[in-house]
Amino acid sequence: MTFEQKAIELGYKIEPAKQVQGKPLKAIRTGNLVYTSGQLSIKNGVEIKGKVGKDLTISEGQDAAKHAALNCLSAIKTVIGSLNNITRIVKILGMVNVERDFNESSDNDTSKVIDGCSELLHEIFGETGQHARSAVGMTLPRDFAVEIEMIVEIKSL
Amino acid sequence: MTFEQKAIELGYKIEPAKQVQGKPLKAIRTGNLVYTSGQLSIKNGVEIKGKVGKDLTISEGQDAAKHAALNCLSAIKTVIGSLNNITRIVKILGMVNVERDFNESSDNDTSKVIDGCSELLHEIFGETGQHARSAVGMTLPRDFAVEIEMIVEIKSL
Amino acid sequence: MTFEQKAIELGYKIEPAKQVQGKPLKAIRTGNLVYTSGQLSIKNGVEIKGKVGKDLTISEGQDAAKHAALNCLSAIKTVIGSLNNITRIVKILGMVNVERDFNESSDNDTSKVIDGCSELLHEIFGETGQHARSAVGMTLPRDFAVEIEMIVEIKSL
Repeated sequence: MTFEQKAIELGYKIEPAKQVQGKPLKAIRTGNLVYTSGQLSIKNGVEIKGKVGKDLTISEGQDAAKHAALNCLSAIKTVIGSLNNITRIVKILGMVNVERDFNESSDNDTSKVIDGCSELLHEIFGETGQHARSAVGMTLPRDFAVEIEMIVEIKSL
Repeated sequence: MTFEQKAIELGYKIEPAKQVQGKPLKAIRTGNLVYTSGQLSIKNGVEIKGKVGKDLTISEGQDAAKHAALNCLSAIKTVIGSLNNITRIVKILGMVNVERDFNESSDNDTSKVIDGCSELLHEIFGETGQHARSAVGMTLPRDFAVEIEMIVEIKSL
Repeated sequence: MTFEQKAIELGYKIEPAKQVQGKPLKAIRTGNLVYTSGQLSIKNGVEIKGKVGKDLTISEGQDAAKHAALNCLSAIKTVIGSLNNITRIVKILGMVNVERDFNESSDNDTSKVIDGCSELLHEIFGETGQHARSAVGMTLPRDFAVEIEMIVEIKSL
């Protein structure tokens, strides 16, 4: 089964993102790598905002991370057309919108939040979806809950 | 018009940065990519410091971002000599020095701050200057207002 | 003297990291680059946690950064076997766990903390260890003191 077929089977509709004139590119290719811009937690057009661990639960944060990841895949499709051209998910930078004392308890863990992204990649891409990552807390634009940057390796097109 | 000519026409004097002995490299090349170190908001030798949205306005933050970007270009020139060797601005990580509650209002937006960098790149490089980016808030060294990391693609030299 | 020999001479025991099933990869190769996941400040199995500048001194933070860097080298060994295959340390992202007002004094400086990583790389790799880097403050998972991401260039294997 191809990655595109697998995504559809899992119920994900991943369309190429619309590039907004005058804004940073959704994604860019250099050689056989594609870099995305940081993609925000927007789910079917609805913005997921707030500090994880305060305004949102960890579970809601994971859902935000999953949708930021789906938006990365949409961004990548603007450059390579089909997810089937991905040969490797290389690197994730998962950024979680947190209060500064978020991580001081062991239950509050930015890694757990970004697992929502990593699990999605595993579901769709299997072994090809295994990646290196960092998952850290900071302050995100317009109070979005999660932002994710992705680097993927693609076939020579 | 070349990128070097365009920069001069716009009034920007972009010299190769001075590498300080024993410090991280200003920039480094691998293959046909150049990675800069994070460059700080220093304008004609004057350090731009403070929390954006508290000590500095958004507009002052944009100016800080523009000068951090100019410093990235100086850093890149230590490795490739001339801006004319750039074939693509690939990726920007724009880091804004903020209070943790900076982004909770829609006027306060780290994206707007980093637009000061993106606009400069568009001015000098046109289409070649289109890039992927993230623009996020964190705590910066010695309270500098903005720090920017850049990855560019260059000609085979 | 090889890098492996130098590391041993300096007293560092750098074994390939153990990959945990179902977790992000410790490191990943694409072309002749290796990207690590963010590696945490763990020293001989002991977790170094807390906010640098509050719970830990700058000097303790530097030690945390050194051990996060050693963990990056262990991560890289999972992919390339021997440190002798490294041709260039390319880029470091040094992330320091801080209070939001950490950098407001000139003594408190995230750059100084990450010097603990840069010095280690210089000790082991000499000129090959010269790198680009950013060194910034944010909120780290489970309150770890330092997290470091590394990109290195390797021989064609």
